[in-house]
Amino acid sequence: MATTPLPVLGARAKSASRALALAPRAAKDAALRAAASSLLDARREILEENALDVERAAAAGAGATVVDRLRLDEGRLASMAGGLEDVARLPDPVGEVVEGSVRPNGLRVRRVRVPLGVVGIVYENRPNVTSDAAALCLKSGNAVLLRGSAGAIDSNRAIAAAIRRGVEDAALPVDSVQLVVDTAHETVVEFVKLRGAIDCLIPRGGPSLLEIVREHATVPYVMDGDGNCHVYVDSSADLDVAERIVVNAKMQRPSVCNAAETLLVHEAIAPVALPRLAAALAGVELVGDEATRAILPGVAPACEEDFASEFLALKLAVAVVSSLDAAIEHIARYSTGHSEAIVTRDYAAATRFTREVDAAAVLVNASTRFVDGGELGLGAEIGISTQKLHARGPMGLRELTTVKYVVEGDGQVRT
Amino acid sequence: MATTPLPVLGARAKSASRALALAPRAAKDAALRAAASSLLDARREILEENALDVERAAAAGAGATVVDRLRLDEGRLASMAGGLEDVARLPDPVGEVVEGSVRPNGLRVRRVRVPLGVVGIVYENRPNVTSDAAALCLKSGNAVLLRGSAGAIDSNRAIAAAIRRGVEDAALPVDSVQLVVDTAHETVVEFVKLRGAIDCLIPRGGPSLLEIVREHATVPYVMDGDGNCHVYVDSSADLDVAERIVVNAKMQRPSVCNAAETLLVHEAIAPVALPRLAAALAGVELVGDEATRAILPGVAPACEEDFASEFLALKLAVAVVSSLDAAIEHIARYSTGHSEAIVTRDYAAATRFTREVDAAAVLVNASTRFVDGGELGLGAEIGISTQKLHARGPMGLRELTTVKYVVEGDGQVRT
Repeated sequence: MATTPLPVLGARAKSASRALALAPRAAKDAALRAAASSLLDARREILEENALDVERAAAAGAGATVVDRLRLDEGRLASMAGGLEDVARLPDPVGEVVEGSVRPNGLRVRRVRVPLGVVGIVYENRPNVTSDAAALCLKSGNAVLLRGSAGAIDSNRAIAAAIRRGVEDAALPVDSVQLVVDTAHETVVEFVKLRGAIDCLIPRGGPSLLEIVREHATVPYVMDGDGNCHVYVDSSADLDVAERIVVNAKMQRPSVCNAAETLLVHEAIAPVALPRLAAALAGVELVGDEATRAILPGVAPACEEDFASEFLALKLAVAVVSSLDAAIEHIARYSTGHSEAIVTRDYAAATRFTREVDAAAVLVNASTRFVDGGELGLGAEIGISTQKLHARGPMGLRELTTVKYVVEGDGQVRT
Repeated sequence: MATTPLPVLGARAKSASRALALAPRAAKDAALRAAASSLLDARREILEENALDVERAAAAGAGATVVDRLRLDEGRLASMAGGLEDVARLPDPVGEVVEGSVRPNGLRVRRVRVPLGVVGIVYENRPNVTSDAAALCLKSGNAVLLRGSAGAIDSNRAIAAAIRRGVEDAALPVDSVQLVVDTAHETVVEFVKLRGAIDCLIPRGGPSLLEIVREHATVPYVMDGDGNCHVYVDSSADLDVAERIVVNAKMQRPSVCNAAETLLVHEAIAPVALPRLAAALAGVELVGDEATRAILPGVAPACEEDFASEFLALKLAVAVVSSLDAAIEHIARYSTGHSEAIVTRDYAAATRFTREVDAAAVLVNASTRFVDGGELGLGAEIGISTQKLHARGPMGLRELTTVKYVVEGDGQVRT
């Protein structure tokens, strides 16, 4: 079967986006609920198609984590449908008046939230992203081009088809949601150059995808980048709190971007704190600097690269720092600007850390694992931005919009 | 004299930016005022250096507009100094709490405005941009790399040196403001690839610069793009208002991006409106479509390219449209997304136009010339964004910042 060329998909998305941008909340919510029903109605077919993807992955020798992310079952399909309904319940960001005023010459000025237009998403082998991303884009009035990976193509086709049936049932433009079925590696480069069609690209994936985007993208993008997150245990830290936070940040879900990858401990507390933390981290591979190894002789030496790594596994780099300044310096050097935490009882240390550490999120006496759209109150997230422009940190519905100045007058001209 | 390599300038800017980000408003305002004094103290030297640039431009046969933009005199220097003092009087965006709440688990979450870090600006032969851009970046806590053009290098050197003396007098890091003196054409490409050093690039210039940025930039950028702005005169328009607005939008300052380039007139009113508007536009070269030429036989035919052009001159493309829908379609096809105006007395037409036209600014019964930071209440502007991400429309101090999540807890962990 011939695949539709990307520019054609782009033009269809653009056209759909113009109608979708004007759709009232009720129509969008109806489409989301219809898509949820349609997804459940199609469950047998989706699971059959998913089985093909899983079989192919297993035959290719994919690891257990990859297969687990890929595999759908009745429960996971039900949560995907539930996710669509959850998004229907979130407030509509479109039309919000962000601010407004009357100018001295009588002009009435307001800034109004409007959809971006067309959002392009490149993502990994996770079929649930197909429905999650479609839901958030639809609710925020954006058409979406979903560019999943080859490994999940059969699942994604079935899921996208079901969602499109829902969109059509609710009389919204069916091309509001389109899946790119040509998943050849080269087409990623073509995708990130669809200028004029894609208003915002959100790449979700590993370092090689992000590098392709940085080098080749000519469309605007918001990067969901790596998280080399630190927990710094200050000299004044409550060790019970430190233990709870370090264990949670490292171990609760090590494969995600807001998990901790480096532990920094103030030298004044290190002789007491490190043995205790190491014991609590049983099951985690520790690598440490010289000072850490002087206290914990069993720990393997950490190299420079360890401190720059996002392990996404039960592995933690450990360093002893001589001061708060040294901790801040270490973080400035190795941080990817995602989430950085301090454990302290010292007011001044907390204040300095939150002001001086440059990251999407800085936390005091709380686990880095809270840096997530749901946990921070956004309702849902389409990714976590590690860049500074447009959106920083978890991106929800609001981050899928832009603003427009509306200026109303009575014949005013500039003099 | 050997020029400092760009990566060295970038590293100095980064280092300066960390201190500058923490500077209180009083220190930044003191630096701005000291820079204003220093600029006036150096007026003799700056005017001498400027004379060299002007002489070079004249010898190279530059047009009157270019030479006029380049030339400084006592009055222009005084306004540059006044501009620095004006920015000192604007509120400091840094530290503003954008929003905040307490989560169900007791976490205190707030989003705080912080500087971007290092801003890079590429700009044309206008020496006043050197001080204007430095002022806005300094006030918003950002270090700035100023990459002016070769034609203004002598003026820019003298201006930047004076501003740096002011910054130093106020005990802020002198490398908060740096001029890139190597203005060879190739170094623009190197500049837009200074990833890790530049947090936000603002290109200000013509289509060739913008194309270099789109093709080569690996740093995040906000584009100050072209303005192919339209004025649509609806069938219900008050012709007095229409005449005033069309004349102002086209003629008050034709060389700027918010000037009108195309006039659209509803067919029902065209036979009356066009002759009157054409008379009022005496001195403007008109090119028109068939229907326009049927009413104004003296007008030359407009080609496709005319409707896509930003003339930046006393030239206007004119088309007759059969309906509001046709006007909206024409704008969707040719607009660069800058500023679009409707003249109407019809409530529904005004509402539809403001909702359906996709641009940074949509205006009802007001001149497109109002789309400007000063006019819309931003105090000052560093450019006008025609992109949708990060900033859209005039960019003031707030658009030179990002936000950071600050999350404070009492030992909370995620379950």
